[in-house]
Amino acid sequence: MPRFRLKLAFLGTDFHGWQVQQNARTVQGTLNEALSRLFEEPISAVGCSRTDAGVHAEEFVCHFDAAKSFPAERLPMALNPLLPDSVAALSCEEAESGFHARFDCTGKIYRYDIFNSPLRHPFYENRAARIPRKLDVEKMRREAQAFLGEHDFSSFMAAGSDIKSTVRTVFSLDLQQKGDLVSLTVAGNGFLYHMVRIMAGTLIERNFGKDLLPIPEILAKKDRNFAGVTAPACGLYLQNVFYE
Amino acid sequence: MPRFRLKLAFLGTDFHGWQVQQNARTVQGTLNEALSRLFEEPISAVGCSRTDAGVHAEEFVCHFDAAKSFPAERLPMALNPLLPDSVAALSCEEAESGFHARFDCTGKIYRYDIFNSPLRHPFYENRAARIPRKLDVEKMRREAQAFLGEHDFSSFMAAGSDIKSTVRTVFSLDLQQKGDLVSLTVAGNGFLYHMVRIMAGTLIERNFGKDLLPIPEILAKKDRNFAGVTAPACGLYLQNVFYE
Repeated sequence: MPRFRLKLAFLGTDFHGWQVQQNARTVQGTLNEALSRLFEEPISAVGCSRTDAGVHAEEFVCHFDAAKSFPAERLPMALNPLLPDSVAALSCEEAESGFHARFDCTGKIYRYDIFNSPLRHPFYENRAARIPRKLDVEKMRREAQAFLGEHDFSSFMAAGSDIKSTVRTVFSLDLQQKGDLVSLTVAGNGFLYHMVRIMAGTLIERNFGKDLLPIPEILAKKDRNFAGVTAPACGLYLQNVFYE
Repeated sequence: MPRFRLKLAFLGTDFHGWQVQQNARTVQGTLNEALSRLFEEPISAVGCSRTDAGVHAEEFVCHFDAAKSFPAERLPMALNPLLPDSVAALSCEEAESGFHARFDCTGKIYRYDIFNSPLRHPFYENRAARIPRKLDVEKMRREAQAFLGEHDFSSFMAAGSDIKSTVRTVFSLDLQQKGDLVSLTVAGNGFLYHMVRIMAGTLIERNFGKDLLPIPEILAKKDRNFAGVTAPACGLYLQNVFYE
């Protein structure tokens, strides 16, 4: 039974995230439907991670098994007409039978886009979080360095998560400004639920002098209550997914 | 009676162009409605040019008169909540009473975005024209130079236009490639109806060896039938509008 490894991109605006849910439009549900039509058998894809409603992906990897064979390199071309405009297959290959999109993932890069302008702009609607007040990007960049390395990120995890370890390693972290667009790019071996959005929200709130501890102290508290707000979903992009 | 000069940006996807039409949603109609609500009097804006259905603007200038006064610099902030997500005011100033958004315009820059990929991508949907076959961008850049300078652009004008002169000057012309995105940027003192879209369509068709004359000869024919197709509206952006 061939296993396929499929790379997608999607605009998350119209979806309630990746994960299949009852009575909600999800990327996984939409993809499963299209794959099942293409293969004429029930197909269920396994994704590299969950994503929240409104979160986008420039690169999202999933795997699935099919009883029928299909030339993998031709799959995106055949699948895309069965998917809505907001989702597209970018590439596909046959994977080893043991390949698992989630468990084998060794790292990810997320990008958080902030449109830093007092006025909204139609091109960034739902594609970046708008922050009206002027950000001190230099200060954000300086402060963000505290996230680098291995830390217990409990303070930067949404309450209610049920996982074994809250220790994650941030490999690299970068802040870029291009006109009114400020992008925070974070590479790590894994991310807790809402981690990047809470990191972004905390950096923004500290930027505006909100009464929050310095980042190293927030990390040390291991308590969500000490970090800043969860920044809006529409600014978050899963940008790259890595495997061995 | 104060005259205002207003700068907008819009995503043209959901509009039947700028110009007011009966029974069609247009940018001008939508703007007039919002301005009339804000000023509590009937307002009618005059735009720097017509745009086709689906064409976008990064910078579109218009003017309007109002009986009431209003602090111009605060107008965008007050107007934007009355406009749909796909249109936003970027800036506003009081203009001299003789200012005319269309007649006083001394130049414009248009950009034509091509997403050059066999597979569609959700981020470029309606925001670039997708060309599946690989373009030779170097060849396009070389050929495009023939548009530079003053020419009779009759061959690059949609049939049915009713204007006095078909002579226009192209000041500069540039082709940039960034990954799969190819952008043709053209600055000129004025543009005929569909001119940039026919220029783009002709460059693309010549790129694929379609039986078309070289650009200088097409220009010399002064006949629309010798140029290539009109490239899709969704790739076109009015990028800048210039005044003395």
